[in-house]
Amino acid sequence: MSNSSAGPILVLGGARSGKSSFAEKLVEASGLPMHYVATGRAWDDEMRDRIRHHQDTRRGKGWITHEEPLDLVALLRRIDDPARAILVDCLTLWVTNLMMEERDMAAEFAALAAFLPEARARLIFVSNEVGLGIVPENRMARDFRDHAGRLHQMVAEKSAEVYFVAAGLPLKMKG
Amino acid sequence: MSNSSAGPILVLGGARSGKSSFAEKLVEASGLPMHYVATGRAWDDEMRDRIRHHQDTRRGKGWITHEEPLDLVALLRRIDDPARAILVDCLTLWVTNLMMEERDMAAEFAALAAFLPEARARLIFVSNEVGLGIVPENRMARDFRDHAGRLHQMVAEKSAEVYFVAAGLPLKMKG
Amino acid sequence: MSNSSAGPILVLGGARSGKSSFAEKLVEASGLPMHYVATGRAWDDEMRDRIRHHQDTRRGKGWITHEEPLDLVALLRRIDDPARAILVDCLTLWVTNLMMEERDMAAEFAALAAFLPEARARLIFVSNEVGLGIVPENRMARDFRDHAGRLHQMVAEKSAEVYFVAAGLPLKMKG
Repeated sequence: MSNSSAGPILVLGGARSGKSSFAEKLVEASGLPMHYVATGRAWDDEMRDRIRHHQDTRRGKGWITHEEPLDLVALLRRIDDPARAILVDCLTLWVTNLMMEERDMAAEFAALAAFLPEARARLIFVSNEVGLGIVPENRMARDFRDHAGRLHQMVAEKSAEVYFVAAGLPLKMKG
Repeated sequence: MSNSSAGPILVLGGARSGKSSFAEKLVEASGLPMHYVATGRAWDDEMRDRIRHHQDTRRGKGWITHEEPLDLVALLRRIDDPARAILVDCLTLWVTNLMMEERDMAAEFAALAAFLPEARARLIFVSNEVGLGIVPENRMARDFRDHAGRLHQMVAEKSAEVYFVAAGLPLKMKG
Repeated sequence: MSNSSAGPILVLGGARSGKSSFAEKLVEASGLPMHYVATGRAWDDEMRDRIRHHQDTRRGKGWITHEEPLDLVALLRRIDDPARAILVDCLTLWVTNLMMEERDMAAEFAALAAFLPEARARLIFVSNEVGLGIVPENRMARDFRDHAGRLHQMVAEKSAEVYFVAAGLPLKMKG
């Protein structure tokens, strides 16, 4: 986090890759007040338990949590502040929620693209890399993969640093 | 593209990773007349639109397009020329087509392996990394994954440069 | 393998990525007597042929093969010796077998975690990265992905070197 004023950080990784823990450490190292934006919806008990567990862990360390499954950009504009570090966990759950609500993906992504260069907070985005398996037979899964891939390219292009995390180890792709 | 005479370039990446755009930039940077070999078949309207869109974009920049779903090596031998850069997009679609036609995969890969060290054109291959998800339940998908993996190893071994692209960012694996 | 006394090596990669060949080369370069621990079960003819083929190849080079689908840690403790290199191929098949036998995953992983810092042999683990595709619809596959990811993080944390292999090319993540 040396060039902390240069722009957002994107942390990509697979399932259970340790990407969120790595991103949380980046935020904690910033020394700034820590805000956590959860995009996931508590669909079932498993998800609810997971969210509660994470919240309890972070709360102890002074994190403030915001839940926003859809209107991510509006929330980020509302809480944007140069004296804050904001962790968004994660972009792929946001994409899932937007698709379920049949939102205009291009418009949503454009709104985020417009915001990123103006953001004053220290922004860290976590997202799942999902495009390295076999082409899914399910059309919705293929569309999801395409949306996620496009979003990652856009956010990476506007980010100061990009990491790919595997087995808990970060590989710097940019910055 | 510093060591442009040393051999082919392989660009691997996931779905919507930006691998084709990166490969196109490598070709454009070569300063050579640009040839595009499309291995994809226009099965449906979506594919047809995608191919047409890409063709229109490249045509404006002076690309010459060749379509060859199966006899890739014969085509490459025909258009091979030291004063050309040839982009093959992509190897995984070629593998799909060969499997559908029940071609002898080992023989096809051997023919490509024999050609690569003799090639005089600047060759850039794009391919999808597909082996980093869960083992597919479908036997054909497992075979496809195995064929693609073996082909990637062979082409990488005979290439001067290999890149892995994620979120539009190239990671140099070789060269 | 410069810092060979510092701890285990983890080799991660996708299907047909060349990860096992790379790991075998690491072992052969060690100059130590070579032990191969196969965790895969010969479920069907295809698997049986594959195992036999690998065994024949390695036997000619002086490898000693052990088959252990479940009690990996007990076996490793039994054959542990500072004058040996031991290749475990692979962790993901071990996870599969543990899940099928409904073993206590946390206890099994804890036993491995406890052994790793005490191991005196040169240990090389091979494993499949499986978390970079679309979320599987199948619950068991999701659980498998979670277990594999957690295990990879733990082993990577306790390893001296970690490699990610794609297209036969190793990328050093740690060490």
